[in-house]
Amino acid sequence: MTTPLIERTVFIVSDSTGITAETFSHSVLSQFDKAKFKPIRIPYIDSAAKADEVAARITRCALEEKHAPLVFSTLVNPEISHRIRNANCTFLDLFGTFLQPIEEALGMKSNHSIGRSHSVGLSKQYNNRIEAINFSLAHDDGQFIHGLQQADVILVGVSRCGKTPTSLYLAMQYAIKAANFPLIPEDFERGTLPATLTPYRSKLFGLSIQPLRLSEVRNERRPNSEYSSLKQCRYEVAEAERLMRMENIPCLSTTTRSIEEISTKVLEEVGLNRQAY
Amino acid sequence: MTTPLIERTVFIVSDSTGITAETFSHSVLSQFDKAKFKPIRIPYIDSAAKADEVAARITRCALEEKHAPLVFSTLVNPEISHRIRNANCTFLDLFGTFLQPIEEALGMKSNHSIGRSHSVGLSKQYNNRIEAINFSLAHDDGQFIHGLQQADVILVGVSRCGKTPTSLYLAMQYAIKAANFPLIPEDFERGTLPATLTPYRSKLFGLSIQPLRLSEVRNERRPNSEYSSLKQCRYEVAEAERLMRMENIPCLSTTTRSIEEISTKVLEEVGLNRQAY
Repeated sequence: MTTPLIERTVFIVSDSTGITAETFSHSVLSQFDKAKFKPIRIPYIDSAAKADEVAARITRCALEEKHAPLVFSTLVNPEISHRIRNANCTFLDLFGTFLQPIEEALGMKSNHSIGRSHSVGLSKQYNNRIEAINFSLAHDDGQFIHGLQQADVILVGVSRCGKTPTSLYLAMQYAIKAANFPLIPEDFERGTLPATLTPYRSKLFGLSIQPLRLSEVRNERRPNSEYSSLKQCRYEVAEAERLMRMENIPCLSTTTRSIEEISTKVLEEVGLNRQAY
Repeated sequence: MTTPLIERTVFIVSDSTGITAETFSHSVLSQFDKAKFKPIRIPYIDSAAKADEVAARITRCALEEKHAPLVFSTLVNPEISHRIRNANCTFLDLFGTFLQPIEEALGMKSNHSIGRSHSVGLSKQYNNRIEAINFSLAHDDGQFIHGLQQADVILVGVSRCGKTPTSLYLAMQYAIKAANFPLIPEDFERGTLPATLTPYRSKLFGLSIQPLRLSEVRNERRPNSEYSSLKQCRYEVAEAERLMRMENIPCLSTTTRSIEEISTKVLEEVGLNRQAY
């Protein structure tokens, strides 16, 4: 524990929302777990005057903190980008760095146009995404069973195993119409899938969870109930997993996985090749 | 229109989910609007053997298509990354390119550890995000008005102006507890905000929309209804905007904006500095 803790301000500068640059910086900086970062996202820098203001702010920050801040930039216009590069900073040029090798590989110039990636207010692709969100909301937790034939995937599993956030993530990032349907004690007593689901066997994907974790999650919602008891959670998880094995439904444990990781597995398994937004 | 249309396969290779690399590649490639890309995401490449398989697939693709594909990589381990770099491709090393200048700036080495950014299954930060999603769902469309004091922001606006997808995006990407509350004809007749909202004036953010677009959106849900008529949409939007002006609520039009763009504006206006996941 002799390494001193390093702290740095990180500016994320973009001519658009800066969300791509922010996610990327977060990912790269997670490789430095002995350092602490203070990220500041500055979106919509689309003029020389705004860039000069940001450059001045960066240089001021370097003076105050006695360290040059890191700057992640997705500025497309080289004229604007140049003004920030000249500030007292470590300038990480996410677009500039890669545009040139891609231009060479394709034998064509890039558009150098500003704010393209999230400026899609009314495109078909964007509408699909919003439609998928509405679909996933309408088909959350087994509600509104009409329209299941339109689902790209139907997540099944016990109550509170992570179906809802995963469905919404799939819809939001991949425009996937993800319904979800709970497996409940009634299904376990009967020992078969809910009849509603049998026509859609090929769309089903199972989520499971460790009973102890499930009990914690349920206790937050309904403390000290039968529903939240470890005994009940053990029973439901074992029965749900048995049912999925019997019905040959692919199944994944959500216990230590993020919605990004779960979604990635679902896409692989269900054979949907979709591009993230 | 003399430029020929260029088509390329794009591999996105990661030791984790590859979502960061995918989003980034999408953003960079949107700068080449005369080219058409076929993206293939290959997640969880965490061994030399898996890397060799991917390298062989890339080289095969180059042979078949008679063009070296583009490869966006967030492989952290240089040993694994090296094997893919050697395939017949234009290799774009998202991590390697930036780790070195950051290491120099910080005077410390990176962890070189695999799959850190979305491997956060049970962290506090991750739990906040899931909690925010649950909060936003529970407080969608003015339901469950108890607990509004816990909201980070409350979006208000006429029915179908984009409140729900924006709330969910804020929750999912920023762990922001975003409630939303509809403004309805009853509020316009009375000419004041719903009483439920008055204690939370500082948390309110208004969304508006062009009446013509609103009418289109509503018609998809309830065709040829009074609710969807242009006349009704014009009335509601005008009244909602008047109410917001009167109450000094910041307001943004969603008509041509994506949920990323709307969320960015909301964060700026409400003064929440949060980091995206």
